[in-house]
Amino acid sequence: MLILGLDPSLSCTGWGVIRSEGSRLSHVANGEVPTNPKAPIAARLHHLHDAIAAVIATHAPDRVAVEEVFANKNPQSTLKLAQARGSVLAACGRANVPVREHAARAVKKAVVGTGAAEKAQVQAMLKVLLPGAQIAGADAADALAVAIADAHLSY
Amino acid sequence: MLILGLDPSLSCTGWGVIRSEGSRLSHVANGEVPTNPKAPIAARLHHLHDAIAAVIATHAPDRVAVEEVFANKNPQSTLKLAQARGSVLAACGRANVPVREHAARAVKKAVVGTGAAEKAQVQAMLKVLLPGAQIAGADAADALAVAIADAHLSY
Repeated sequence: MLILGLDPSLSCTGWGVIRSEGSRLSHVANGEVPTNPKAPIAARLHHLHDAIAAVIATHAPDRVAVEEVFANKNPQSTLKLAQARGSVLAACGRANVPVREHAARAVKKAVVGTGAAEKAQVQAMLKVLLPGAQIAGADAADALAVAIADAHLSY
Repeated sequence: MLILGLDPSLSCTGWGVIRSEGSRLSHVANGEVPTNPKAPIAARLHHLHDAIAAVIATHAPDRVAVEEVFANKNPQSTLKLAQARGSVLAACGRANVPVREHAARAVKKAVVGTGAAEKAQVQAMLKVLLPGAQIAGADAADALAVAIADAHLSY
């Protein structure tokens, strides 16, 4: 079972693919898709859409996991995030891969054991859970974390 | 100059194409793209993306006009709207059509003459401004209104 975790954002969308076999997890690949902040928003959204479509085509995940979106304190940030998410989820819909959403707290709990974990704790646990993985950056780490949570929360 | 107006929403995205020649406007086409509320969100977003990509391919607009998104009182509604918008704008980015955003008040002012116009007034003025147009519904009407505003606000 291959799981693609996504951490959508307009400035940089993280992605990570893991293999889940029973209770064993292993790292497959991860990366980040930055967009040009000077480009028009439509071009940036298209870039995210196509880059994630390419990741899906390359790795053929059995499913996609993404954090539930929440309304941020900053409405403009929330709108940017949600637009990026819409573009990226459309790419998942194109490939007909099922998408599961997980609450941020559930992701932290699955990876670290507590829903109140700090980002640094999540990243430290990733090194334990996916030994040897070279992680592209903080957004790729978040994407791997949601993929791990999805594997743990399997039903 | 062909202008495609869009009124993105997850449940039903409206679109309308007008021709703008100097101060003359004429109706070209309009329609609505409903999505299946029982389908997964990724499938719905993909459907919107592809339907608007098809409209762009068919009508080859010179530019796209869309209302500025605003943070609704209901955060969940805002998130759905923004995800639909992201998916649809990605299709515009794919086709490399420039997108302009207009404030809702500017659209009403351009169509009716006052930024505080009611929806019914906007729809009544559409019949005057685009005589003979058969309008697919309220979402298509909103899309035509933003296209008209874009023509009036040309720079």
